Amino acid sequence: MSDRLPKTAITPATHTVPPARFSHGVRKGNILQVAGQVGFLPAAAGQAPTPAGPTLREQTLQTLANVETILQEGGASWEDAVMVRVYLTDTAHFAEFNAIYDEYFAGLEEAPAARTTVYVGLPAGLLVEIDALAVLG
Amino acid sequence: MSDRLPKTAITPATHTVPPARFSHGVRKGNILQVAGQVGFLPAAAGQAPTPAGPTLREQTLQTLANVETILQEGGASWEDAVMVRVYLTDTAHFAEFNAIYDEYFAGLEEAPAARTTVYVGLPAGLLVEIDALAVLG
Amino acid sequence: MSDRLPKTAITPATHTVPPARFSHGVRKGNILQVAGQVGFLPAAAGQAPTPAGPTLREQTLQTLANVETILQEGGASWEDAVMVRVYLTDTAHFAEFNAIYDEYFAGLEEAPAARTTVYVGLPAGLLVEIDALAVLG
Repeated sequence: MSDRLPKTAITPATHTVPPARFSHGVRKGNILQVAGQVGFLPAAAGQAPTPAGPTLREQTLQTLANVETILQEGGASWEDAVMVRVYLTDTAHFAEFNAIYDEYFAGLEEAPAARTTVYVGLPAGLLVEIDALAVLG
Repeated sequence: MSDRLPKTAITPATHTVPPARFSHGVRKGNILQVAGQVGFLPAAAGQAPTPAGPTLREQTLQTLANVETILQEGGASWEDAVMVRVYLTDTAHFAEFNAIYDEYFAGLEEAPAARTTVYVGLPAGLLVEIDALAVLG
Repeated sequence: MSDRLPKTAITPATHTVPPARFSHGVRKGNILQVAGQVGFLPAAAGQAPTPAGPTLREQTLQTLANVETILQEGGASWEDAVMVRVYLTDTAHFAEFNAIYDEYFAGLEEAPAARTTVYVGLPAGLLVEIDALAVLG
């Protein structure tokens, strides 16, 4: 209907195709939701999704980069993020994860997003998954 | 206060009574939040909540139906959903879950919602829990 | 930019300093997101964050109080919350948690928030983590 708020899928060319009928990011009105990202390297034709590396550092930096690409393609940036939801797989990773997170966000100018961190299961080989909610404008 | 945005609980007649003081869905302004749904069959007077069946397929389809009912009672549909949060209990269920999800959403016309899928614990017998965030308008 | 919606960090004086570059709460436009709270007692200078006690009751009540403080500092209250996300660590805690939750929210006047409850891992000694999303106005 012409009077509906437009709803836009955000599908960066660098991203692997979602394994099911969901969008890597979606924007409706001034809300932008980034789907759970993991540390997959940019998609390469004919190759299965591949993590950036086995370490928490490699995967975290790639995961944050993957979230950022979606924010940017949706017309937003980390400055617009109000929530970052972090799923780790091992409580022993908390301190190292925080150090990487702080380093990554060192240049943030506005109030940092809220964050929740919990420990869950993820597919084998993946150590971290992150999604984000942004409010544009 | 009369100048507050109305906040509306969404309590479909088909749904079991929440086991605590929360709403199955709630709408405020143009935000509609659906609480975590599981695969319970429509409520039957005098009966304890009962899952649709023991299989991932039965529970997933019932869970998605339960989310949809709340979206609809709140004046929304899956087309308005920006985020679907999926809690599975076993990483071995991912491929089958995705197949069911794709089948369920085959008719979706607008951009599909973003999605995060993680693996958590759920009460015994429950294999999947799903919540959703929708932006109306 | 002067035409951006202001984004405000909510950092109650009673709260321990976040262990990384995130905000305990953040408000942008009419959206207020509360970061995952645990049952830490009010911050005491020179002391490491300390849970209110070892029991589910002590930690749940402190956690809910910690969420409420952030809502209030952000100009909101539980009446504005549309979603409460509950992370427990043991499915055996569900009934007791619900009883505490109901008691805590006995005075709520508007529709209660939606809620999702799942079972995850948390750092040693912590039994519950809760975050919340509120829509102001």
